[in-house]
Amino acid sequence: MPIKMKAGVLGATGSVGQRFILLLSENEQFDAAVLGASSRSAGKKYQDAVVWKQTSLLPGESKDLIVQECKPEFFIGCNVIFSGLDAEYAGPIEKSFVDAGFAVVSNAKNYRRVPSVPLVVPTVNSEHLEVVVNRVKQARSQGLSKPGFEVCISNCSTAGLVVPLKPLQDKFGPIRFVAVTTMQAISGAGFSPGTPGIDILDNVVPYISGEEDKMEWEAKKILCSVNGTGDGFDLLSDDQLTVSAQCNRVAVSDGHTECVSWKFTNRDKVPSLEEVKQCLKDYSCEATELGCPSAPKHAIYVLDEPDRPQPRLDRNRDRGYAVSVGRLREDPIFDFKMTVLSHNTIIGAAGSGILIAELLAKKGVL
Amino acid sequence: MPIKMKAGVLGATGSVGQRFILLLSENEQFDAAVLGASSRSAGKKYQDAVVWKQTSLLPGESKDLIVQECKPEFFIGCNVIFSGLDAEYAGPIEKSFVDAGFAVVSNAKNYRRVPSVPLVVPTVNSEHLEVVVNRVKQARSQGLSKPGFEVCISNCSTAGLVVPLKPLQDKFGPIRFVAVTTMQAISGAGFSPGTPGIDILDNVVPYISGEEDKMEWEAKKILCSVNGTGDGFDLLSDDQLTVSAQCNRVAVSDGHTECVSWKFTNRDKVPSLEEVKQCLKDYSCEATELGCPSAPKHAIYVLDEPDRPQPRLDRNRDRGYAVSVGRLREDPIFDFKMTVLSHNTIIGAAGSGILIAELLAKKGVL
Amino acid sequence: MPIKMKAGVLGATGSVGQRFILLLSENEQFDAAVLGASSRSAGKKYQDAVVWKQTSLLPGESKDLIVQECKPEFFIGCNVIFSGLDAEYAGPIEKSFVDAGFAVVSNAKNYRRVPSVPLVVPTVNSEHLEVVVNRVKQARSQGLSKPGFEVCISNCSTAGLVVPLKPLQDKFGPIRFVAVTTMQAISGAGFSPGTPGIDILDNVVPYISGEEDKMEWEAKKILCSVNGTGDGFDLLSDDQLTVSAQCNRVAVSDGHTECVSWKFTNRDKVPSLEEVKQCLKDYSCEATELGCPSAPKHAIYVLDEPDRPQPRLDRNRDRGYAVSVGRLREDPIFDFKMTVLSHNTIIGAAGSGILIAELLAKKGVL
Amino acid sequence: MPIKMKAGVLGATGSVGQRFILLLSENEQFDAAVLGASSRSAGKKYQDAVVWKQTSLLPGESKDLIVQECKPEFFIGCNVIFSGLDAEYAGPIEKSFVDAGFAVVSNAKNYRRVPSVPLVVPTVNSEHLEVVVNRVKQARSQGLSKPGFEVCISNCSTAGLVVPLKPLQDKFGPIRFVAVTTMQAISGAGFSPGTPGIDILDNVVPYISGEEDKMEWEAKKILCSVNGTGDGFDLLSDDQLTVSAQCNRVAVSDGHTECVSWKFTNRDKVPSLEEVKQCLKDYSCEATELGCPSAPKHAIYVLDEPDRPQPRLDRNRDRGYAVSVGRLREDPIFDFKMTVLSHNTIIGAAGSGILIAELLAKKGVL
Repeated sequence: MPIKMKAGVLGATGSVGQRFILLLSENEQFDAAVLGASSRSAGKKYQDAVVWKQTSLLPGESKDLIVQECKPEFFIGCNVIFSGLDAEYAGPIEKSFVDAGFAVVSNAKNYRRVPSVPLVVPTVNSEHLEVVVNRVKQARSQGLSKPGFEVCISNCSTAGLVVPLKPLQDKFGPIRFVAVTTMQAISGAGFSPGTPGIDILDNVVPYISGEEDKMEWEAKKILCSVNGTGDGFDLLSDDQLTVSAQCNRVAVSDGHTECVSWKFTNRDKVPSLEEVKQCLKDYSCEATELGCPSAPKHAIYVLDEPDRPQPRLDRNRDRGYAVSVGRLREDPIFDFKMTVLSHNTIIGAAGSGILIAELLAKKGVL
Repeated sequence: MPIKMKAGVLGATGSVGQRFILLLSENEQFDAAVLGASSRSAGKKYQDAVVWKQTSLLPGESKDLIVQECKPEFFIGCNVIFSGLDAEYAGPIEKSFVDAGFAVVSNAKNYRRVPSVPLVVPTVNSEHLEVVVNRVKQARSQGLSKPGFEVCISNCSTAGLVVPLKPLQDKFGPIRFVAVTTMQAISGAGFSPGTPGIDILDNVVPYISGEEDKMEWEAKKILCSVNGTGDGFDLLSDDQLTVSAQCNRVAVSDGHTECVSWKFTNRDKVPSLEEVKQCLKDYSCEATELGCPSAPKHAIYVLDEPDRPQPRLDRNRDRGYAVSVGRLREDPIFDFKMTVLSHNTIIGAAGSGILIAELLAKKGVL
Repeated sequence: MPIKMKAGVLGATGSVGQRFILLLSENEQFDAAVLGASSRSAGKKYQDAVVWKQTSLLPGESKDLIVQECKPEFFIGCNVIFSGLDAEYAGPIEKSFVDAGFAVVSNAKNYRRVPSVPLVVPTVNSEHLEVVVNRVKQARSQGLSKPGFEVCISNCSTAGLVVPLKPLQDKFGPIRFVAVTTMQAISGAGFSPGTPGIDILDNVVPYISGEEDKMEWEAKKILCSVNGTGDGFDLLSDDQLTVSAQCNRVAVSDGHTECVSWKFTNRDKVPSLEEVKQCLKDYSCEATELGCPSAPKHAIYVLDEPDRPQPRLDRNRDRGYAVSVGRLREDPIFDFKMTVLSHNTIIGAAGSGILIAELLAKKGVL
Repeated sequence: MPIKMKAGVLGATGSVGQRFILLLSENEQFDAAVLGASSRSAGKKYQDAVVWKQTSLLPGESKDLIVQECKPEFFIGCNVIFSGLDAEYAGPIEKSFVDAGFAVVSNAKNYRRVPSVPLVVPTVNSEHLEVVVNRVKQARSQGLSKPGFEVCISNCSTAGLVVPLKPLQDKFGPIRFVAVTTMQAISGAGFSPGTPGIDILDNVVPYISGEEDKMEWEAKKILCSVNGTGDGFDLLSDDQLTVSAQCNRVAVSDGHTECVSWKFTNRDKVPSLEEVKQCLKDYSCEATELGCPSAPKHAIYVLDEPDRPQPRLDRNRDRGYAVSVGRLREDPIFDFKMTVLSHNTIIGAAGSGILIAELLAKKGVL
């Protein structure tokens, strides 16, 4: 067995951090080598610092690790840093790691809109990683030490949306309009305190702060192209892609369900329903092609049963890295509509982070 | 206290029938005088025939009523017949009552699309009742005995949708496009067996058989005008109003939440967000104006809090006869979007039936 | 209509305080006249200070009341003070009100175990109020001004337990052993943050901090007698009554379900199952006898259906002031077992407070 | 890899049958070779006959198997028959398989109380299998063909109860009294229709037909000894062990939580709390010792956190074959109390069946 790369986890006691640690415990490429959290937790054994809330047990190899403060000097030797930090703290901490030369893969929203930072759903736009690959190669060619860089994981509800849109855009040309209504799981809201039970039992909360704006904006970055000079992105304009999102919280533990309608830009060659379905079935992403250990067998599963996908039944396909698409049908206003299900803490958060790191390793920049 | 009118209830042991009986027990205009059910239940006391599943107790005055078969001869003397029959049985039974001269207000879908039958949400299109009023008056003027007639209650998810659309259409002209995604309560699925627990716990079911088609079609009848001769309706065409619906079942006991986007037909005078909001706030329906006992104080409540309406908190406004509208905002694809909450078994089913009957009484045809 | 008495509410923005205000808005004897909360809320209109989480709307008459700090000088003229304060703050604040001569009815646990303070479930041991009545009468007879006093509401899960035990003890003599396992609603955990959604969805939490000890201790005070001098209580010893409690949180919004087994002390005349059932059916409490406005018609409902009581169907009997008992049967270890359902925020909290105040008014000490 | 044994599954389309097929798909000893169901399903491919409701996908190797009628002639060559049949059908069908010489491991209740049939929780009383082992060996020694036999899986809630009681009884002598209150998952109720959503959302159902009687009786067979002649069991009498059960259904998908109090028979040497805890921690069952592939690493996990075990967090320990025990403490009426969590469809149903078969294979009688 080859020696594993070392990973650091920032925000290790939070909900995203816990998920990173759980996924790393099953990962064949990375080890959770250093765990960082607030100064309140630093110095304690991880098992004493964390209130473990995952449905699998705390991995034995992480139990006794001593939690460190989130400072670069404690993470020396880590090939990659996964950040599950809250947005409140992520900004300066992640910057300090990038400045110290680390490769940071972050679930926080802070740097997603920075032009030079790739915003990546790894089964969708792994080609965006070329921007940081170019930067590293350029430094190497100049004999400079490897520069630090940041890659951002997308918002969880955005991830579910763009996975099926990508192959459609690739095959049938740009998508002009997307209307999406989400029914999102409570695990996306974290633990402290997360969604109160009284708000979610026998209820729907038709609002998630900031979420709709994230979906409407991030989709335009994820679905765009790397620019000509290879150091940034040709962000789609509102005239190229308009997304309208309505976000709701429902009584589901894991798995975001999204009802999506869309219309293609090219009106003279709108594909048939069968062509759309086939396109989704045929899709294979770069992470799968390259053989990344966490890559799903299929990035997309197209379900033909009339009442699928359902979170309880479909969220764990390919360990949560696959997205399920069902109820594909024509739409009387747009071109088509469908229901998309994605695992919000895997492909929508920590899992994407790990698959991004596996891609970065394949591309030789870790 | 004036003497109450007598009401018969068909399908009295089912979920809609139970709700009719509960609402009638609190109604000042109608008494549940005759209860009809299948021959299996006929002859038993109601309390022995029913598996009562309401959150209020079985009303004392109905407990000992002997259940009758659903045949007109057992309902003589009833001013109105409320039908909570399953569609499987409703067709011939309701016809036999209409043929026998009864006024039938039905929750079943069987006659909703018959051109001469009004399909009514009582806080929306009570003017459609004129078609049956005209028929009765004509018979009277000809010295004929009062003819039977049928009025249909709309589908529950359609009811929530059309309530806010009606005042908008009245004030700002026709609506061209409506996209709606629903999150529907399980009480709408009835009891036998209804939605299984294992399908709804920690889950969303993205499909309700026939529901999307009902929403897309019924809205065009409810929002149309009575025809020139007063004996039918000028159904809206697909070119006048296009509705696209996506229907989901969620873990909510009562209350359908709907995310709605819409676009007006008239592009030269699209109202502002404030005008839309004011229009909804100002709306007062005929049932309220006429002083129908069950009419809501306001057919629509506009909520300004960012995270409302919510089923658990808002479904019982004005005893479930009011619809709550929140999250009104501009839509980057359509004109506006909003979240609508309606009580599916009150304004979406039995409650509408009773308010329709109160309107028919006011209009002098019971 | 007679003029209402004035009530003050301490902790008015919290979950218990909100319930007090809701119940007072429907009460014919008391008005919510002064609302007290933390200094952070003081000075604001109530509707601006509160995050209202009740399923009925914020009562109109309370919306614009200016929130006061919890100091006696702001509550002058109030006949009674209802305290919904957190235990963290209740101690000195309630003491300052008692010292200032107010009648305080508190939901906090702080003074429950003080020997001279009655711990009352109003449909169970209203005779314990004699201790404060005696104190007031004595002061009056001595020409002194009316002294302040405190009455404590019991813990919510204790309330459900003792209601059926009281008539059994009255009729068949002391109860020696009680084993109880609870399945408690999340509304009992308050709002900030209360039970997190992720802890309660598809889950049971087999622990509620301090709850089992409260049940095991409080039952011995509530079920005891006033002492010979009328100024305190002959607390039951562990040898007289032993309670063993196991407390769980389940996914229910309102309503505590408790599985109870018990054994009588007197072994020579253990009643039959029918006698036990009849005793519970026959029970009528003093609050009902005196005609207190909030008193239930029956303090106990005995249900014969095999699968009742259920929280969703039975919690609102007599507006939540009645307790439902079902599944009465012999127990092979104890004498009998049963399932008891009580509304935890009505008879288990704020509702009991209001009914206690109505009893105090009837007894002439407000 | 050794050749797997062939397993037949009766009732393959039902909820227990589905779980058998899922577990067999991951089992290294048995293959699901023949699938039996009703004549309505017979002749179809399994994937067309079943409404698959498991959270893992239908195993590929079972999809295209042609469903057979439940007749022995279609199962020739199977080493073991797993029955997930409903009690309504299980009686004569299972008998026909035993008569035809098959080893039948059944989840149905029909033969559990037959004196010669072992009722087995495989991590508890695997020694009861000696009764059928003896029968087979005797036949062999007489040169007779291998006789068919039946082994019954216990009721799901009984399984959770007896696992921790067994080591306590082994070490500290007989247990005299057990009081247990259950909070049971809905997956135990099957699919058709199972527990209706409206009964379980925001609710507790304090009744499961027949369940309490099963717990009170089955525990006395499972915890008893094989008789002196090795062909049956010395069932415990009511005077030796008295169990009082109160069973409830709660809103949990998988995992039964049980609050258990118990008292030992021997009063002169009652163990300490620490001794009880250590005894549970030290327990290792025969299935683990023998290296059965499905055996848990530990039959019992003792949790020290005050709020554990919880179904969502602990039900999958050792793939659902382990039972979790928490909240161990002294009981003021009995000796001790604890909370026990077991996976009702694994150790409480199909999983136990498979582990029983693995034990039978180790003992040489398949």
